[in-house]
Amino acid sequence: MKLWQKGITPNARIERFTVGNDYVLDKELLRYDCLASMAHARMLHKIGILNRHEQDLLVDGLKEIIDLDQQGKFEIAPSDEDCHTAIENYLTQKLGDVGKKIHTGRSRNDQVLTAMRLLYRDAIDRIDTLAEELSGAFRHLNERFGSVAIPGFTHTRKAMPSSVGMWAGAFTDALDDDRALLRTVRALINQSPLGTAAGYGVSLKLDREFTARELGFDTVQQNPVYAQLSRGKFEASILHVFSQILFNLNRCASDLILWSMPGWGFFELPADYCTGSSIMPQKMNPDVLELIRGHYHLLNGLESQVKNLMGNLITGYHRDAQLGKEPVLKGIEITAECLSIMTTLIEGIKVDAEKAARQMSDELFATEKAYKLVEQGVPFREAYRRIAKSLFEK
Amino acid sequence: MKLWQKGITPNARIERFTVGNDYVLDKELLRYDCLASMAHARMLHKIGILNRHEQDLLVDGLKEIIDLDQQGKFEIAPSDEDCHTAIENYLTQKLGDVGKKIHTGRSRNDQVLTAMRLLYRDAIDRIDTLAEELSGAFRHLNERFGSVAIPGFTHTRKAMPSSVGMWAGAFTDALDDDRALLRTVRALINQSPLGTAAGYGVSLKLDREFTARELGFDTVQQNPVYAQLSRGKFEASILHVFSQILFNLNRCASDLILWSMPGWGFFELPADYCTGSSIMPQKMNPDVLELIRGHYHLLNGLESQVKNLMGNLITGYHRDAQLGKEPVLKGIEITAECLSIMTTLIEGIKVDAEKAARQMSDELFATEKAYKLVEQGVPFREAYRRIAKSLFEK
Amino acid sequence: MKLWQKGITPNARIERFTVGNDYVLDKELLRYDCLASMAHARMLHKIGILNRHEQDLLVDGLKEIIDLDQQGKFEIAPSDEDCHTAIENYLTQKLGDVGKKIHTGRSRNDQVLTAMRLLYRDAIDRIDTLAEELSGAFRHLNERFGSVAIPGFTHTRKAMPSSVGMWAGAFTDALDDDRALLRTVRALINQSPLGTAAGYGVSLKLDREFTARELGFDTVQQNPVYAQLSRGKFEASILHVFSQILFNLNRCASDLILWSMPGWGFFELPADYCTGSSIMPQKMNPDVLELIRGHYHLLNGLESQVKNLMGNLITGYHRDAQLGKEPVLKGIEITAECLSIMTTLIEGIKVDAEKAARQMSDELFATEKAYKLVEQGVPFREAYRRIAKSLFEK
Amino acid sequence: MKLWQKGITPNARIERFTVGNDYVLDKELLRYDCLASMAHARMLHKIGILNRHEQDLLVDGLKEIIDLDQQGKFEIAPSDEDCHTAIENYLTQKLGDVGKKIHTGRSRNDQVLTAMRLLYRDAIDRIDTLAEELSGAFRHLNERFGSVAIPGFTHTRKAMPSSVGMWAGAFTDALDDDRALLRTVRALINQSPLGTAAGYGVSLKLDREFTARELGFDTVQQNPVYAQLSRGKFEASILHVFSQILFNLNRCASDLILWSMPGWGFFELPADYCTGSSIMPQKMNPDVLELIRGHYHLLNGLESQVKNLMGNLITGYHRDAQLGKEPVLKGIEITAECLSIMTTLIEGIKVDAEKAARQMSDELFATEKAYKLVEQGVPFREAYRRIAKSLFEK
Repeated sequence: MKLWQKGITPNARIERFTVGNDYVLDKELLRYDCLASMAHARMLHKIGILNRHEQDLLVDGLKEIIDLDQQGKFEIAPSDEDCHTAIENYLTQKLGDVGKKIHTGRSRNDQVLTAMRLLYRDAIDRIDTLAEELSGAFRHLNERFGSVAIPGFTHTRKAMPSSVGMWAGAFTDALDDDRALLRTVRALINQSPLGTAAGYGVSLKLDREFTARELGFDTVQQNPVYAQLSRGKFEASILHVFSQILFNLNRCASDLILWSMPGWGFFELPADYCTGSSIMPQKMNPDVLELIRGHYHLLNGLESQVKNLMGNLITGYHRDAQLGKEPVLKGIEITAECLSIMTTLIEGIKVDAEKAARQMSDELFATEKAYKLVEQGVPFREAYRRIAKSLFEK
Repeated sequence: MKLWQKGITPNARIERFTVGNDYVLDKELLRYDCLASMAHARMLHKIGILNRHEQDLLVDGLKEIIDLDQQGKFEIAPSDEDCHTAIENYLTQKLGDVGKKIHTGRSRNDQVLTAMRLLYRDAIDRIDTLAEELSGAFRHLNERFGSVAIPGFTHTRKAMPSSVGMWAGAFTDALDDDRALLRTVRALINQSPLGTAAGYGVSLKLDREFTARELGFDTVQQNPVYAQLSRGKFEASILHVFSQILFNLNRCASDLILWSMPGWGFFELPADYCTGSSIMPQKMNPDVLELIRGHYHLLNGLESQVKNLMGNLITGYHRDAQLGKEPVLKGIEITAECLSIMTTLIEGIKVDAEKAARQMSDELFATEKAYKLVEQGVPFREAYRRIAKSLFEK
Repeated sequence: MKLWQKGITPNARIERFTVGNDYVLDKELLRYDCLASMAHARMLHKIGILNRHEQDLLVDGLKEIIDLDQQGKFEIAPSDEDCHTAIENYLTQKLGDVGKKIHTGRSRNDQVLTAMRLLYRDAIDRIDTLAEELSGAFRHLNERFGSVAIPGFTHTRKAMPSSVGMWAGAFTDALDDDRALLRTVRALINQSPLGTAAGYGVSLKLDREFTARELGFDTVQQNPVYAQLSRGKFEASILHVFSQILFNLNRCASDLILWSMPGWGFFELPADYCTGSSIMPQKMNPDVLELIRGHYHLLNGLESQVKNLMGNLITGYHRDAQLGKEPVLKGIEITAECLSIMTTLIEGIKVDAEKAARQMSDELFATEKAYKLVEQGVPFREAYRRIAKSLFEK
Repeated sequence: MKLWQKGITPNARIERFTVGNDYVLDKELLRYDCLASMAHARMLHKIGILNRHEQDLLVDGLKEIIDLDQQGKFEIAPSDEDCHTAIENYLTQKLGDVGKKIHTGRSRNDQVLTAMRLLYRDAIDRIDTLAEELSGAFRHLNERFGSVAIPGFTHTRKAMPSSVGMWAGAFTDALDDDRALLRTVRALINQSPLGTAAGYGVSLKLDREFTARELGFDTVQQNPVYAQLSRGKFEASILHVFSQILFNLNRCASDLILWSMPGWGFFELPADYCTGSSIMPQKMNPDVLELIRGHYHLLNGLESQVKNLMGNLITGYHRDAQLGKEPVLKGIEITAECLSIMTTLIEGIKVDAEKAARQMSDELFATEKAYKLVEQGVPFREAYRRIAKSLFEK
């Protein structure tokens, strides 16, 4: 039964459409929603709306749901609409009138915001760790092959001497900077929306600081209209940082695909990392790198969905916001997956120093030659022209 | 077993990542892949690579797979990688050496292109029908309430008199134009890529016209490099037309949301189409319209994914292309779903003529008043200024 | 003076912001607006609102504006807001009351739609010609170097033998298909919106067929609400086809950048098409190709702007639509420019047959070897495995 | 003359295309480039490449350029390609061999990165100030009208009581959070790339800490490959924060457009902030709000351009990056403009308390009524159902 049903049976097709796949997505949310509901129940006791016994019954019921869920035994039915409803229905069925009290002083609007933010916080922490691990893999690559000279390219042409160490270091530094941005976004979303109800607060005296503390939020998001305004907005920032992270991976994968091209490249992908062709017996393909590269674009599409869903709408909740849930969950999954696979890859790749040496051709040293003339007092532009002349008149 | 395995056991994590959810998505593709494989088998017989008996065995085996699939009994395991592999493995297990012949003269690259296009063609036809039905619903609305006058708005302000009929007619016309565009896209994608193999043809004398005819393609896509170049490109055009269709629905939903606002609006959503709030007892919300509105943005994000996946890459297949499969399948589902639900809605909504009449206030007729002066010989700009003066000096 | 001014002086900063750079952009529109206004004046005479003399005065005045504009002597001042106002002000200043009659029975809303569509039609025709010319350049390349064998790549690895002719043909075919789509879009936009006024028609008996014929429109866009609904919508389709065209150029440029890499590539860019580095004397960079490649992304961004501007808004004109003017004008310019430069390039590049031959290494022929076994009766998958084994055991 | 010219005259059309409008855009960059060049000259003296006299000549020459530019007398010709070239050419023409030394130890690649970051830093500071001012305008609005009750909406339907103060406070808080994100992005970009040359450093012993300090950078961006990798990446983050800021304005403008609708709304736009219609004498349109709303979408398109330009490319500079210059400059302008206009607007709007009161209808208090029952001991869900029943049976 829906929380809002009032005697009218919803049109079956429309019901199915509005529920969509929310009841599936909400499996990921269920645990967080129970944790937030426990804090809410304790707060309702603290301000005198529940007595101690009622609080304990609710908290125990919620723990039970978490346990059942961990055993894969708690189901959210399509008729439940979402995890919030499934939880309240479970509590009401089990506890009767006590269950009917859990929703006092809140709306699904602040409830879902709260559960989502707890989920985001965990996801951000997980991605931070994965980014750190990838950073470590690049450091390790530097230890193994850092001093091998490789060509530095500009415009996909050999430019100046580079090295495996310089290349790997770029990603280490980029990931470190992205993690700084990620920390700011974590602080941004780690504000408690619980108690803002449907976006306009309630006429009850809730203790919002209490629930915020219980749930580990840094602060209370005081303004209820802002709590709703931040829906879609915070998600965009989360996806933006993920996009920044995947941007590094996209560029790195592009390098590795080209620089491991047989007969030319100096990087080596282990054979068991490669994929074959159904028709061409000789092929050893870097599918894994191509898929990492491609996920950058999937992620940008998700960010774009989230950014546009709420555009041109007045403030206050609209159901459109719900369509932003899947993009973020997917964005988290993609980012975690790509970081983790890239770490495996960077740990596994090898540099063929001999092939690298073969690529260190003369043209890479043209600028150094010009600098030799500069040291002899020739103005740089003059030195540049002399070297250029010597190269192009050959 | 993978089609391309050659003694090296793929790294388990990388295998899982590269397969992704392809084995799930391919359930939708399986039937089309079998149909295309039947045509391919018949062609291989025609050009003398298979004898009649071998052809019959393969065709029967493929029919069996279609039957099993319809009964939900054909499974694509993650270890199969995709439906193409599952099919070949099934045939080989059942028919031995004959099964090992089915892939002669083709690559998974043209195989998947072929199956996808057959699927697209069906999807386009289904969406064309659904768009026609929605067009019909608007015509029906016009029959029921067409003559009711409603305000025409510009800048979200009352502008000039409009009518339910004029409003409904806009969507009928828009959908009709979109269907014309859809037909062009159908013709575009209805070219047979079968026989282009990995994007460079094969050294066998395939009869590409034969398979094209068998599969109902309008023409053969002759150039194999173009066959691969069109991957991602054709998908972008399909999603673009869908986006055009959903654009109509987005605007229509926006109208209905505003124009059914209690205490102001003149459209009425049936009560059983509305959704409630978990906290506010009075709410009757147009969630269904909001979700239709929002799907426009989801679709644009999918189009953007497809458009960017293949950008900046050299010609020829890259695994990145595979990530475009899910966006198109999802785009088809979204578009079909939204069209179908919107038809239900338009059939169900009512116009409250009395409330509409109450909104037909004086300012809507200011231009008509100016035209009255024009008929008396006053130059229009002069007439405009006189009426404006009379209004703003009040 | 603004057309709508009624005694209140607009706030200067807000005026500047709302006008934006419209008065600059409208220079491109002016000529088309005059042509449409001439047709409108003739129609007003035909239905008896203007007498013959008035019609002639207006038509002559509009011709004068076109002449002045061609000489660079007609200015649109920021205080004019846009070209429509500048034109009416000019006519009124010159012809007094007769000038004040030109706007009878129309709004700037249908006026700008009409002028824009005339401009689009010309632009589409110009781009169609440029696409044809590029197609011709690829055909010419085929004549010059078509038979030179080059490697065909998949996954950025050598796959099977290809040729310059096969490669060039892909772009010819792609451009031909894009032009078919372009023709559909041309037909779509070539509907006359003139007479739909502010999106709700007018109470005067206009002869819309007459103006449509005069201006070369295929048909009258009957429904006034649809005329406004198509704003942003038609533009999205125009930009979509342009994006499809630039997609070809993006991929082609990517090929040429890689395949002309010194010491490896077999394509040759003329030296005077290349750009150098400020620091590295040896560099000859394919900047022109990189910029062509990049414009694909600029164009997609413009399409995305246009698609999102009108999302989530009720039907009827909103000023947001005006922000879509620049993206389309820019999209036209980018597409025309890139097509034209690419034609120059394709006419100028050369293929180094010797270097190409050097790249035709053994692995490209592995599939052919498998087919040799197939001809001897070995089932394909078996043949594939044998060849693979022979390659990887070496 | 181009810095890289070596005897070959570039093809004129290709030259024009590659230069594009860079020579125009670079007007904004010129000053920053001179400042960075001064620091570079001082550093070259410090490490012994220039003597004191040469340093002074160069620094004076650069000051001269800044002065000329401020007087509008320094021109960047298309043949100069960009501001970097115009500056070096000016110095060489004026100082002969000394001018030819300024480019020692740097490339245009790090030069443009440096100048752009100095420009970004100023732009970010300006936008921070403008955001603070808008925040102040909302605070001021709160002081003037904060206590006026207005309806709170969800799903575009009246939900619960809100107030002007609650509404205004949401934007204050949102802007404050956005400014925190802006500060992180400022820190991110405030790393000195000067000395990374073409992305692989140089063989000279530059003192990068010295130039970083001179130019007020927080730190040196040590890794040269990362310096190039951050091109497009840092720009994406800048545009992301701007998008977050404009998101607030988009929602706020949407509110004001609806909530100032004549005959319904309670906000009042001053008459001199409104725009009229060319055909409808009665219209007073909120064009300014619609344009603010629309700029959010323009900005997202710019961000999308920047994010996709560098996708799928190997590390190292590509000319594609240059196409990202205009989107960022435009993004800065749009954001600054919209913030500034919105401040004017918020300072100018009024609340009509009487009209607001008229909108505070019964349904807004249904939840409060349920809470009254909760205080009497009725479980919330029970109370909710009782109130709902009483409302819908009427």
